[in-house]
Amino acid sequence: MKPYVIGLDLGGTNSVFGIVDARGEIKATTAIKTGAYATAEAYVDASVEALQPIIEQVGGIETIKAMGIGAPNANYYKGTIEKAPNLQWAHDTIVPLGQMFSDRLGHMPVALTNDANAAAIGEMVYGVARGMKNFIMITLGTGVGSGIVVNGQLLYGHDGFAGELGHVTMVRGEEGRLCGCGRKGCLEAYCSATGVARTARELLAKSERPSTLRTLDPEAITSLDVALAAEKGDELAKEIYDFTGRMLGEACADFAAFSSPEAFIFFGGMAKAGELIMRPIREAYDAHVMPIFQGKARFLVSGLDGASAAVLGASAIGWEIQ
Amino acid sequence: MKPYVIGLDLGGTNSVFGIVDARGEIKATTAIKTGAYATAEAYVDASVEALQPIIEQVGGIETIKAMGIGAPNANYYKGTIEKAPNLQWAHDTIVPLGQMFSDRLGHMPVALTNDANAAAIGEMVYGVARGMKNFIMITLGTGVGSGIVVNGQLLYGHDGFAGELGHVTMVRGEEGRLCGCGRKGCLEAYCSATGVARTARELLAKSERPSTLRTLDPEAITSLDVALAAEKGDELAKEIYDFTGRMLGEACADFAAFSSPEAFIFFGGMAKAGELIMRPIREAYDAHVMPIFQGKARFLVSGLDGASAAVLGASAIGWEIQ
Repeated sequence: MKPYVIGLDLGGTNSVFGIVDARGEIKATTAIKTGAYATAEAYVDASVEALQPIIEQVGGIETIKAMGIGAPNANYYKGTIEKAPNLQWAHDTIVPLGQMFSDRLGHMPVALTNDANAAAIGEMVYGVARGMKNFIMITLGTGVGSGIVVNGQLLYGHDGFAGELGHVTMVRGEEGRLCGCGRKGCLEAYCSATGVARTARELLAKSERPSTLRTLDPEAITSLDVALAAEKGDELAKEIYDFTGRMLGEACADFAAFSSPEAFIFFGGMAKAGELIMRPIREAYDAHVMPIFQGKARFLVSGLDGASAAVLGASAIGWEIQ
Repeated sequence: MKPYVIGLDLGGTNSVFGIVDARGEIKATTAIKTGAYATAEAYVDASVEALQPIIEQVGGIETIKAMGIGAPNANYYKGTIEKAPNLQWAHDTIVPLGQMFSDRLGHMPVALTNDANAAAIGEMVYGVARGMKNFIMITLGTGVGSGIVVNGQLLYGHDGFAGELGHVTMVRGEEGRLCGCGRKGCLEAYCSATGVARTARELLAKSERPSTLRTLDPEAITSLDVALAAEKGDELAKEIYDFTGRMLGEACADFAAFSSPEAFIFFGGMAKAGELIMRPIREAYDAHVMPIFQGKARFLVSGLDGASAAVLGASAIGWEIQ
């Protein structure tokens, strides 16, 4: 009887479940709407109901060894989701989601971690970080997240919330951009999808250079618009990638002084731009990193398929604990 | 027969050896001049000769379980000192110092690490970090060093050189102060002893405010002059501590986003100023750290006696490996 784990990618909109084997193949999948439930109890009820048929499909509950959950504001140590602004059944409370799922699923081990940490474990178990013991995963999406692996272990810190590298300060003082976290000048304010859109608006306003982006309403420009323009060779769009990549490269130079990883692995929409973003990252890193670290770290794009990466990452947490 | 370890604080000028028991008591001590030897072999010969009488004093070589060395440019993984600019027998080469001592001392286990890492381990074994699994040690001396402990282990990174927090960039761009590492704007360029002296010169030049520091030759001002003036209530000297502390506090806010430690522990000359430096550190930290980390970390001054801390720290590495 082959062993499996359940991976749950718990997002603000959708909750996607996958049953995954030890080689990282998703054998069965299902999903529910995260926000359709008023209470955590109702959410877990609906989840367990949705899981039943796919659990049967792989041979029943005895074949499932553990469950891993990637979720916003997840506390790995406690198995809780703590005051997650985007989850209506957890926005003002602490939900012991791990225990709740465990109670309903034959007391199997259940672990939670945040999305970026799940991606890092996923990369280590199934992706380009196989065999690595020290690397940093940087997720470029709506926000900028990170998962830091040292000595082969995810870095959770004292309280379970370590690895918030999207919120190191890149621009100090009043000229720093306001970040969603309420502070100024965070990496995320520049290198997230909204940060990239803001860079586009600023560069368009600052110069008269021709660009296909000028045909769009500046306030409605998205990072996807920038990506499409850059792909077609738009010079201003490329400059936006340059700016974003340089900021990431400078940040990585500081991260090297912290944990001296053998690789930085980028995941998410922006990372798909390939050399457009990776070249300025590497160049800024080489220009700013301490001599002792020069030429040591590799810069990689995630090896996980975007659509299934979050579920795979979550499931990998399951393998860690079973 | 009580077990002991040898601790060696290998500095640019002096090499201080201590034989330490499990409770952190230094039972015997000796020293040689680090720079008096042309080759690493001659240095080890002289060390072993100096060690003989103190080893006999505690009951002979059989009572010694291991040796720990704190040294510049030490590579923990390899047991080597690599191109240490201040060591004439190691400035242009890689010295397998661990193996050399082991061969001469009955093949006992010998481990090397850099001074700040040794201080961190010392703090964990004998000092204020006893029982802590996640903390950051920051040493304020000629340079700014750091030792990062996560999950109860020292963070060495991929190559053994992790934890160079003195070289995160605090002031970006051309206005950043030139650092000894060749880059600009590093924390060390502001918060080391030479950084503090430079801050003093800058503040004296920028204003007409009265200060006892004005009686000194600006080019000859040291961090000790600033400390003495501040102790006597000199306002400008206090402002120098404020500036330095704020810079450290802002840096610690970024470090929290990395490893979320339960404490930051400060060691070295500047830390002895107590609240003069600790208050601005805490205030800047509270003002800049992400909300999720607010109020969680403690700010402590090292519990190790300055004179013996380096030897104790080095010896603690010995207990780790024996």
